[in-house]
Amino acid sequence: MILTVTLNAALDVTYRVPRLLPHTSHRVTGATERPGGKGVNVARVLAALGHQVTATGFAGGAVGAVVRELLAADPGVTDALVPCADTTRRTLAVVDEASGDTTQFNEPGPQITPAEWARFLTRYEELLAGARAVALCGSLPPGVPVGAYAVLVRTARAAGIPVLLDTSGEALRRGVAARPEMIKPNAAELAELTGSRDPLPATRDARRRGAHAVVTSLGPAGLLAATADGTWQAAPPRPLSGNPTGAGDSAVAGLLSALTEGLDWPARLTRAVALSAATVHAPAAGEFDPRTYEEVRGSVKVTAGQAG
Amino acid sequence: MILTVTLNAALDVTYRVPRLLPHTSHRVTGATERPGGKGVNVARVLAALGHQVTATGFAGGAVGAVVRELLAADPGVTDALVPCADTTRRTLAVVDEASGDTTQFNEPGPQITPAEWARFLTRYEELLAGARAVALCGSLPPGVPVGAYAVLVRTARAAGIPVLLDTSGEALRRGVAARPEMIKPNAAELAELTGSRDPLPATRDARRRGAHAVVTSLGPAGLLAATADGTWQAAPPRPLSGNPTGAGDSAVAGLLSALTEGLDWPARLTRAVALSAATVHAPAAGEFDPRTYEEVRGSVKVTAGQAG
Repeated sequence: MILTVTLNAALDVTYRVPRLLPHTSHRVTGATERPGGKGVNVARVLAALGHQVTATGFAGGAVGAVVRELLAADPGVTDALVPCADTTRRTLAVVDEASGDTTQFNEPGPQITPAEWARFLTRYEELLAGARAVALCGSLPPGVPVGAYAVLVRTARAAGIPVLLDTSGEALRRGVAARPEMIKPNAAELAELTGSRDPLPATRDARRRGAHAVVTSLGPAGLLAATADGTWQAAPPRPLSGNPTGAGDSAVAGLLSALTEGLDWPARLTRAVALSAATVHAPAAGEFDPRTYEEVRGSVKVTAGQAG
Repeated sequence: MILTVTLNAALDVTYRVPRLLPHTSHRVTGATERPGGKGVNVARVLAALGHQVTATGFAGGAVGAVVRELLAADPGVTDALVPCADTTRRTLAVVDEASGDTTQFNEPGPQITPAEWARFLTRYEELLAGARAVALCGSLPPGVPVGAYAVLVRTARAAGIPVLLDTSGEALRRGVAARPEMIKPNAAELAELTGSRDPLPATRDARRRGAHAVVTSLGPAGLLAATADGTWQAAPPRPLSGNPTGAGDSAVAGLLSALTEGLDWPARLTRAVALSAATVHAPAAGEFDPRTYEEVRGSVKVTAGQAG
């Protein structure tokens, strides 16, 4: 089983409006809801790839109940979310149908009490017993200590289980120092961590800060990996147009599934790039298009660089 | 007891953001929820005035459950909402803290089945047995026949109970023809009903279409009433700045409470204008400020016009 952790799980709401005009009133023409938060997205992609997946983190209140109900509709994902008293956050994407552009609103998330955090740590240790790999994903809800990911990385490492950490800011900085197997920053997160906007030196710098491997997302240009085995760049055969929401989460699912299958770095990166491309190209945000996945993964271009 | 009907009840969500920038991502700094829909707002104001109130309409799904839970926290309002299978709508107000302006998003509401509508009609007749007055408020959710308010007006009239109808568009046009005791359009709704933008002739025209009395909201300028007893304009002593959300619902509560207390038109209009002003002046949208209410109701200026 692969374990995904989403401490700040969410209900992702999408509104479609004919045209977004600030300071006016809009009739929402379409409203959809899906379970969200990066780790939940990763779990759903892993399940679609045929992996056994367990999703943990926190869920609370009426919104948390909806997240769990929607998650139950995905037979591939086992729900191991830990209840919290405060309410799970919503994220809202308002899609302007005239331009196709999206305006995003993210609630901060539930206030987690020290007792709830302690309960989560106990549950996490129990779940690790059956896990072959762990993904730690996304922001920390209020109340969770900023060093939370460092604790979770160390606990998994002590149990001999590889960890992929995908977060940002101070949570990433502290988590990296605990030496996760992999991190997957995008260019902005990497720049914030290292102070450099030049992807190759910054990716290598991030490795020196503690991650065994750093896979930087370069958007439509693919992935750049600095690892103990070397440096690679992997790019899709052509840039795909579409909605990039969830593309990073699909890359995490690709990297982690390939890791548990014992594939080498070029094969891991190929899968991650193809899944990202298939997510950008899917009709619904955060889903992936299986046909694009099959098509792209035969033609991802992986270029080896100098040893990392 | 006063009965309020909110066929399209809502969960009113308010997001505060530092500045609204379309097509970017926003961290929501404050998120609040309250039970909403015009009739629910009217019920809460009536309860605050000390009246026994029962709120009916539809509530369904996870959002409907939250509406009912929040409503239960108001001891003055009896919840007689009828369950529906589809989910109650949310409305979202995004407040730009830099400008103070609000951008509104309204979901359409639940799809009501013919069986649910029939169930509502039965419940409505039961509730009428104990009602001294009825307020029919707001939009119709999908699936409810467009002539719904005409049916509800006729049923109440047959039971000898006065009805105030506060809606818009085709639902108003059809409802008016069933001869409600009062309607309370704003200037835009009145113009849509009558084709005239001149408030006095349009208000009188709306009476000829069937309403026994028409009370038109003129925004900060107060109310204009055309009734069988005459025509009046009622204005606050000074324009009050603030958030006009809910001011119309407070006016409805003022008119209806004064009607059940047997007050004459100048006293009804005075109460409605003072409650509206106190709502505009309240710190939270849709609440009213009791001090402003007491202060303004001593100084509302009511001017009699020609017999309506």
